[in-house]
Amino acid sequence: DEIREYARGVVETEIEKHAADGLGRVDYALANGGAAVVRHSDPYDMRRGKLFSLSPGNGVHPNADKMLKPSFGEPGQCFPLKGSSGFVQIKLRAEIIPEAITLEHVAKSVAYDRSSAPKDCRISGWLQGRNTDSLIDTEKMFLLAEFTYDLEKSNAQTFNVLSSAGSGVIDTIRFDFTSNHGSPSHTCIYRLRVHGHESDSVSMMAIES
Amino acid sequence: DEIREYARGVVETEIEKHAADGLGRVDYALANGGAAVVRHSDPYDMRRGKLFSLSPGNGVHPNADKMLKPSFGEPGQCFPLKGSSGFVQIKLRAEIIPEAITLEHVAKSVAYDRSSAPKDCRISGWLQGRNTDSLIDTEKMFLLAEFTYDLEKSNAQTFNVLSSAGSGVIDTIRFDFTSNHGSPSHTCIYRLRVHGHESDSVSMMAIES
Amino acid sequence: DEIREYARGVVETEIEKHAADGLGRVDYALANGGAAVVRHSDPYDMRRGKLFSLSPGNGVHPNADKMLKPSFGEPGQCFPLKGSSGFVQIKLRAEIIPEAITLEHVAKSVAYDRSSAPKDCRISGWLQGRNTDSLIDTEKMFLLAEFTYDLEKSNAQTFNVLSSAGSGVIDTIRFDFTSNHGSPSHTCIYRLRVHGHESDSVSMMAIES
Ligand SMILES: [K+]
Ligand SMILES: [K+]
Ligand SMILES: [K+]
Repeated sequence: DEIREYARGVVETEIEKHAADGLGRVDYALANGGAAVVRHSDPYDMRRGKLFSLSPGNGVHPNADKMLKPSFGEPGQCFPLKGSSGFVQIKLRAEIIPEAITLEHVAKSVAYDRSSAPKDCRISGWLQGRNTDSLIDTEKMFLLAEFTYDLEKSNAQTFNVLSSAGSGVIDTIRFDFTSNHGSPSHTCIYRLRVHGHESDSVSMMAIES
Repeated sequence: DEIREYARGVVETEIEKHAADGLGRVDYALANGGAAVVRHSDPYDMRRGKLFSLSPGNGVHPNADKMLKPSFGEPGQCFPLKGSSGFVQIKLRAEIIPEAITLEHVAKSVAYDRSSAPKDCRISGWLQGRNTDSLIDTEKMFLLAEFTYDLEKSNAQTFNVLSSAGSGVIDTIRFDFTSNHGSPSHTCIYRLRVHGHESDSVSMMAIES
Repeated sequence: DEIREYARGVVETEIEKHAADGLGRVDYALANGGAAVVRHSDPYDMRRGKLFSLSPGNGVHPNADKMLKPSFGEPGQCFPLKGSSGFVQIKLRAEIIPEAITLEHVAKSVAYDRSSAPKDCRISGWLQGRNTDSLIDTEKMFLLAEFTYDLEKSNAQTFNVLSSAGSGVIDTIRFDFTSNHGSPSHTCIYRLRVHGHESDSVSMMAIES
């Protein structure tokens, strides 16, 4: 009976986590929460011959926000960039102290081909504020994480922020991938999440304690 | 081995329930099933400065039906109303004998802030039929449920219909909230469901038995 | 402890499968993967009186692809055809050796009515290639499966391809239903999936070994 209770408890906890966006962690890069892609390397047109038009002002592809939305286990719910290296820059929902990054690709069991998954990755972050200048002093950028996306592990892989980043406040991140898992033509980004806590709740906690 | 069978059974049942709209109960307030929001108190514009236009005829916001659709554990999949009290009126898919009401908010683990959740709530229901007059004789209204949405419990909370409602047939409900969990500016409704059974299937059962 | 490990393992495996499109099997009929409905029998208009317009060229209803997309346990996420018999023809994402077919209807626990589910079904397949002629030599068609959709079983039912189909390569299938579960007016198709493996990966494996 004790074991039955235990089994039921495990099931409920795991399903609750699954129902809570898969990980049960707050995501400050969620499009629906107000985050947005602000820059990216050249997109790849999956349907060859079909031209897409970039919004004139900023050069952000209308589908770029796909990488800031849930994929619900469906192949194709991603944003493809040209070649095997590239980058994406994301304005977060709020100023936060980052704690971890999650990179998600489609699950092995339903994928047609996973050679377009990013492989060697680097995440940096900074506080852009109202500064609209896209060139940021590199001294103000933090290296948040460097990792390799592993096709043999779970499809959503979470990496803790390096302790060297201290507890710097950021509102923007840049995701660079320098290789992928074999596709010469393109690299697909299913979803990128940024976990952490809001910087002003930290100050408030400091004041309260 | 008996225990293994048990564990597998629990898992399958719970995942099946999860896959069946989270609760595995029929929802007569589902937008996709033909239900619709017909009236509501003042909406709140999340993106300040951005005007939205109400459809001229009836004053129902184009996004109001978000509260009659699944949220899939995603923050922001809700309809926001101004202030800490307000109401929503919903035409159901069919005439039913109501059995229970479910109010859902975003899960704690992925929420940025849950102060916008409704707190003290009251649900009433009546048979509107083809009567297009929005003023209904209050004698014909049933009080279906009064409850407090509890932030510490599961994010989808189900409340049984009061026995005082008897087995009155309804096709419309009104959801009033008189307080929320702290936000002075707005209250978010993620999803409201109405469970029960169709009134004519009842008559048919009566005839059959 | 061994049993606890076992329980946790079962839970993780089942949730992973659930998260991977419910079945954890590749679907070559997925709209998002490039498949498309190319022909179908007369559609049924759920909202009577509201006319829909067929795209002039090919007569495919704009909503037909709903049957090649996930339903997420929601009633109404289907494509309705007139009457209790009819057909659908689907161009697959790629040339494949088919292994199994999955027909999905809405789960019993959340359905208003399941009399519109298909009952007696037959799936055939062939290699259409660039042949735009809709009349295919019946000698080139394979009978892939004949089955009855059972309302008492799981809502997604998978049927293996008949061994008589050999390992013929196909890129198009036709789904015929000759009866449904009681509705005289229409038959709803929630989702049809085609599982298998790509024919050129087979040749490549042959070369490698
Ligand atoms: K996505
Ligand atoms: K919703
Ligand atoms: K569907």
